[in-house]
Amino acid sequence: MPSTFHQMWAELLPIGRDPGSGGYRRFAWTEADADCRAWFRARAKERGLAYEVDRNGNQWAWLGDPAAGDAVVTGSHLDSVPDGGAFDGPLGVVSSFAALDELRSRGVTPSRPLAVVNFGDEEGARFGLACVGSRLTAGRLTPGRARELRDGDGVTLAQAMERAGHDPDAIGPDTERLSRVGVFVELHVEQGRYLVDTPSPIGVASAIWPHGRWRFDFRGEANHAGTTRIEDRRDPMPAYAGTVIAARAKAGPAGALATFGKMSVEPNGVNAVPGLVRAWLDSRAPDEPTLAALVAEIERVALEQGERDGIEVAVTRESFTPVVEFSHGLRDEVVGLLAGARPYGIPVLPTGAGHDAGILSASVPTAMLFVRNPTGVSHSPAETAAEDDCVAGVTALADVLEGLACG
Amino acid sequence: MPSTFHQMWAELLPIGRDPGSGGYRRFAWTEADADCRAWFRARAKERGLAYEVDRNGNQWAWLGDPAAGDAVVTGSHLDSVPDGGAFDGPLGVVSSFAALDELRSRGVTPSRPLAVVNFGDEEGARFGLACVGSRLTAGRLTPGRARELRDGDGVTLAQAMERAGHDPDAIGPDTERLSRVGVFVELHVEQGRYLVDTPSPIGVASAIWPHGRWRFDFRGEANHAGTTRIEDRRDPMPAYAGTVIAARAKAGPAGALATFGKMSVEPNGVNAVPGLVRAWLDSRAPDEPTLAALVAEIERVALEQGERDGIEVAVTRESFTPVVEFSHGLRDEVVGLLAGARPYGIPVLPTGAGHDAGILSASVPTAMLFVRNPTGVSHSPAETAAEDDCVAGVTALADVLEGLACG
Repeated sequence: MPSTFHQMWAELLPIGRDPGSGGYRRFAWTEADADCRAWFRARAKERGLAYEVDRNGNQWAWLGDPAAGDAVVTGSHLDSVPDGGAFDGPLGVVSSFAALDELRSRGVTPSRPLAVVNFGDEEGARFGLACVGSRLTAGRLTPGRARELRDGDGVTLAQAMERAGHDPDAIGPDTERLSRVGVFVELHVEQGRYLVDTPSPIGVASAIWPHGRWRFDFRGEANHAGTTRIEDRRDPMPAYAGTVIAARAKAGPAGALATFGKMSVEPNGVNAVPGLVRAWLDSRAPDEPTLAALVAEIERVALEQGERDGIEVAVTRESFTPVVEFSHGLRDEVVGLLAGARPYGIPVLPTGAGHDAGILSASVPTAMLFVRNPTGVSHSPAETAAEDDCVAGVTALADVLEGLACG
Repeated sequence: MPSTFHQMWAELLPIGRDPGSGGYRRFAWTEADADCRAWFRARAKERGLAYEVDRNGNQWAWLGDPAAGDAVVTGSHLDSVPDGGAFDGPLGVVSSFAALDELRSRGVTPSRPLAVVNFGDEEGARFGLACVGSRLTAGRLTPGRARELRDGDGVTLAQAMERAGHDPDAIGPDTERLSRVGVFVELHVEQGRYLVDTPSPIGVASAIWPHGRWRFDFRGEANHAGTTRIEDRRDPMPAYAGTVIAARAKAGPAGALATFGKMSVEPNGVNAVPGLVRAWLDSRAPDEPTLAALVAEIERVALEQGERDGIEVAVTRESFTPVVEFSHGLRDEVVGLLAGARPYGIPVLPTGAGHDAGILSASVPTAMLFVRNPTGVSHSPAETAAEDDCVAGVTALADVLEGLACG
């Protein structure tokens, strides 16, 4: 394999990394994001690929004529969660360019157009909604709603785009560009510990669990922590705490996931009883009825505890993504293309994580490759993958692209 | 009573008020703090009082010669907790100036020097330690430790002072200034609901409960909320939640207070299992053994829950203030000065709130007057006091100052 993977990886590595935590803060339309985009553009240019930014800010690098249609597209994203790891997203983009280099070194000639894509704002870390770039392109998010999304400082997505030099009036569905895509294949670091117990460094996705985000507002009354008797308080923190414990207790037995990982407290003073505890529930399950039952149960506990403590509890569903079953035909084709050179077998597994591939799967046949993660840790500076496994991922992606585009 | 109270109150009211919450954000050494200080200086100047800022940034306005000693000093603070109310602190400062105006209108002549003081950084909202101005002056905080206190952005108190034009090298004990103070009387809005059930708009403090702040660090492992199985997680949030519930359950029966009102979560992403939940416990009780037992019990629960979840729990005592018994002699004298004109009796009550008066009480005889709070709410935009009760507070303070200084 060409050494281009390692060089590209090393160039991308310092961008947006926080020296304190060692994690990444590559949030949509920030300086770190712009640096990642500049990196992508340079990689496209140095390969002589036709570079374009679509109306929604996603970056494309084309080998062959896009207008010919039925393109084989691969890629992922470069943005991160707060203090995220180096692999979630970037591994797919770097591996895509490296796989194109590998095809060139094999001397094969694609008969279909090939493209590498970097979807913008996949994590939703800044504006609270994931996969904004792919959602807009696929018509799964209205431009009006997108423009009004706000970050923690009250800046709208429209303002942030404009400040970063992108026209927010231009965003919206991109049927024409999407119609040129024949298949989309996304390579991604695994975010769990399935492959670690198998002999294979590579897996293929079967489905993405349904998942959503719910905002819980526990609203009481701010007061002096040193003078307000316990019985006179309308403190929202105990009801929040009870809700966290219920979520933890009920998720496991349901074979599901429920996490309170983000919150804000007002006024957030050491000597003040809080007036507001706002917390977000992220929940996922293998199927939609299980997810709905779990969230309803957590909400019931929150309301019950709120009533006990004389506080108001409001629950708002901020986003919901139904179950995604990836194209069975493409999945079987990908497994077939990989299986020959890999006698240990190719695991096929579901995932709880959302991806641009999940958004696009409603519009075009889509597949995902996972690269083994030795600890399963993700969304953390400790996220990692073995170098050999990354190399195996590039080879696997090249095999898939060759099989799909050079047949 | 002169109408100066209302005019001063109206001038101070807009400074540092957040238009969104309606609460105050007058944090030490910020612009809002500087505006409050300018207000104080102007009130001193227009009354012909001798104005000075001491080495620790506390403001003084003198009537009579400070060097004569045995001064009667009154005042409070102008800073606030995050989204605090208008009364906590400012009521004491405004009432002090108004009481001096009242003495003038009564035509009485003080035989002792009188001063109004504004102690800096009483709430500790920015740097985490309360009563920094009075602690430094009374030698209850070393200059070295004070200079190294940091705000949420990592700015040290020394840097903040310097940026605000105050020399951080000058801070430290101020024995000479303190030796001029014969007695200190602080008027403050009540922060509980004791006086509301009495016929008296005014109370006198007996003691301040012992109180402290403890930082609880629940340290787990950040991870992907959508892919990490419940059993693979080291999520610090459930142990935090269990600790909150224990604190709430155990404080009431002990006749004590325990509050988790401030926290920070890392990375604080909707789709990330937290790596760190940091939360501050504020706890107070009528006596020190009760407080120690309560905090030990909350800490035990935190450690036990941390062990269960495979996370690390570290508890750090960030501050502790022993019980304060106000001077019995001065308290009885103050009650005597008030009682004559107030046949309904003067309630004497303890408080859970820390005050500069508590800090100074170790150095000089100190008393506190409380003004009735109809809801008991404090440290909140909803904090209030009836206009009649504020006026009664000024009259009471004037009676006390007249009795102490004009005898």
